Amino acid sequence: MNAWIIAVGSELLTPFRVDTNSLLITDRLNAIGFKVSQKSVVGDDADSLATLLTRALASVDLVVCTGGLGPTADDVTRDAVSRALGVPLDLDAEILAGIEARFVRRGMVMSAINRRQALVPYGAVVLENVNGTAPGLWLEPTLSVQGRLVLLPGPPREMTPMLEALVRERLAPLTGGGGLFRRVLKITGRSESDVDAVAQPIYGPWRARPVPIETTILAVFGQVELHLTAAAGSRADAHEALDAAVGELVAGLGPSVYSVDGRTLEAVVGDLLRASGATVAAAESCTGGLVMSRLTDVPGSSDYVEGGVVCYSNRSKTEWVGVPDALIAEHGAVSEPVARAMAEGVRHRAGSTIGIGVTGIAGPGGGTPDKPVGTVCIAVLMHDDVRVRTVRLIGNREQVKYQSAQAALNLLRLMLLKCL
Amino acid sequence: MNAWIIAVGSELLTPFRVDTNSLLITDRLNAIGFKVSQKSVVGDDADSLATLLTRALASVDLVVCTGGLGPTADDVTRDAVSRALGVPLDLDAEILAGIEARFVRRGMVMSAINRRQALVPYGAVVLENVNGTAPGLWLEPTLSVQGRLVLLPGPPREMTPMLEALVRERLAPLTGGGGLFRRVLKITGRSESDVDAVAQPIYGPWRARPVPIETTILAVFGQVELHLTAAAGSRADAHEALDAAVGELVAGLGPSVYSVDGRTLEAVVGDLLRASGATVAAAESCTGGLVMSRLTDVPGSSDYVEGGVVCYSNRSKTEWVGVPDALIAEHGAVSEPVARAMAEGVRHRAGSTIGIGVTGIAGPGGGTPDKPVGTVCIAVLMHDDVRVRTVRLIGNREQVKYQSAQAALNLLRLMLLKCL
Repeated sequence: MNAWIIAVGSELLTPFRVDTNSLLITDRLNAIGFKVSQKSVVGDDADSLATLLTRALASVDLVVCTGGLGPTADDVTRDAVSRALGVPLDLDAEILAGIEARFVRRGMVMSAINRRQALVPYGAVVLENVNGTAPGLWLEPTLSVQGRLVLLPGPPREMTPMLEALVRERLAPLTGGGGLFRRVLKITGRSESDVDAVAQPIYGPWRARPVPIETTILAVFGQVELHLTAAAGSRADAHEALDAAVGELVAGLGPSVYSVDGRTLEAVVGDLLRASGATVAAAESCTGGLVMSRLTDVPGSSDYVEGGVVCYSNRSKTEWVGVPDALIAEHGAVSEPVARAMAEGVRHRAGSTIGIGVTGIAGPGGGTPDKPVGTVCIAVLMHDDVRVRTVRLIGNREQVKYQSAQAALNLLRLMLLKCL
Repeated sequence: MNAWIIAVGSELLTPFRVDTNSLLITDRLNAIGFKVSQKSVVGDDADSLATLLTRALASVDLVVCTGGLGPTADDVTRDAVSRALGVPLDLDAEILAGIEARFVRRGMVMSAINRRQALVPYGAVVLENVNGTAPGLWLEPTLSVQGRLVLLPGPPREMTPMLEALVRERLAPLTGGGGLFRRVLKITGRSESDVDAVAQPIYGPWRARPVPIETTILAVFGQVELHLTAAAGSRADAHEALDAAVGELVAGLGPSVYSVDGRTLEAVVGDLLRASGATVAAAESCTGGLVMSRLTDVPGSSDYVEGGVVCYSNRSKTEWVGVPDALIAEHGAVSEPVARAMAEGVRHRAGSTIGIGVTGIAGPGGGTPDKPVGTVCIAVLMHDDVRVRTVRLIGNREQVKYQSAQAALNLLRLMLLKCL
């Protein structure tokens, strides 16, 4: 079954606020088998909302509308519903009494404008609001309106318990327990088009399987994500299908898949470090401490992070991790020999089992024809094994920093996995 | 003039992602007098998008559509536009050559699927993408289509420069200059309610001024923002009113306002460091390199960042910045004397003019009744002046790290400003 979520409120059309209610609503609807096919945001304007409601109700099974149920003239949802459905608004004496009682309990007198909140479109079922004055409203399909419509207040504290009750009591019985179940694969070290060239032939046929799986590919800086969504009649069927699907993708994409369970790259590396009993130290130039900062974002990272050095200047490379002046003079600060010397020096000084060295040009200045902005040399030293890589990254300064840290953590991961 | 913003992507209909591109687009459109009347999110489905585009183009002056321009089969925006407008897609040889050249520059071979990105709806003007392969597209109104349509790629890094160029070259000339103009004040070291108690009496009367100004307060971790929006017939009137308004707020809130021009705290600190000819080094424990990483996010920071040390273990505190074992034994690693010794040690070793020491408990483990999670000691040493602070922060591990870095940078800022 399909759903359309509408958020009402002019403040949601400014540069300052996004509609986040729809994320929770999507989660709850997906879990019982509704797919969200569209989301809309409209201002406090009854005409636009009425037009939108009419269209949405004609095209999906369920419309969830949040906001615009307050007492002020800005709150137009009730009026818009009345117009869209062609039904009158009636004053509900019970709601009115409830709102008045709520004011009395708080030692206040109800304003006349609060009477608006007791207006109910003809045929609507009232949903109790335990945390506020605006009741929710539920409208079943009619001869002329195909979709179900639910109206919820905008404040999350009021909306959430009403949504939970609605899902449990009215929506779950419509779908019979099946739903959408998800997995996310995170991949690094490959481009989006490269990942898709491998993955598409694998996931392409999944839509036609008994438990159909939809796949979305998403590129963000330094990584690619594959989002798998299975539509199944039961949780067990979904998990079986998803386990098989994840297995096929991992077999195809190999160790470039670093996470199938939501973990970040730094958490994956942390778990590998802990499992191997290793400790790590990093000497960072262009990443400016980001490798260490990401490693230490993980709770418990003090078990395997020894420390590190940000050696931004040549002096600090020499002073803290003993990179010879002559090496810098001969090869330049951004070079594989210097990255390697940084990894060796920091491991020695920190007394760790693993050393990382990162040196590069984050930009926007500092590039040369030989070594343009985005040139980054990475060395990882583990036991007797040392791997050195030079990567060419694109993006602004922060993006080059992030991708450099990603490449360094990934090189460490592949070495810990003995995949290099 | 009215605009409708459409974000395309099935991932934006999951519980995991919200469309944030529309915030920036709204800001830029508002600045030249466009009002955003509706926003929509649709999945990677050509039928739904074509239907939506048809409706939107019939009801507003401008439709801005982001996403779905990538090379994969998921990317349906070009097809949907072709259907909605009833025009064919043609292969653009110039775009294709540009994409191929981009791959060659990166030492890669273009996949066949990238040819899709060179397909252009008949009549469209191509907008250059300086940061990616997907070109943007601009379609003027026709006899049968009332609205203008612009297609932009989804990744913010690609979308943003194309939006700026579009606004400057094609949209601003349509509206003639009036619009909404904005300023943002960034404040740190005070709570939201404390800021509002001072600010509300100042900004309250602004709505009734000849150039009315609306103020929104927004609390994020480690800082509070005041967003000022002036509605004016000319840029000059708006800037005059906003300059006066910002002046009133700064006078009321004092040096806790660190930015009135969009600069980040690290950029503000960087400018003060450069102006004073100082250089800085940091010894970080609980922040794990985040202070250095933020300082080095600023282009040109190599002028004043000497380097730093992440001394996560006690051993590294002693080895790298010479914190005496006895001091740690007497006061604990999280203590003001240790923070001060870290600042002194790192300044000495780095040969910088300023030293920063940060030591604390980021959590979730490691807290004690005396020193609960979130306890962080910060020392800044500048010339003969040393300031040491202990703060108690709330939030998860990453939030404690961020707020600790914020507090350290802010202490340095106030010392550089001689406000302490």
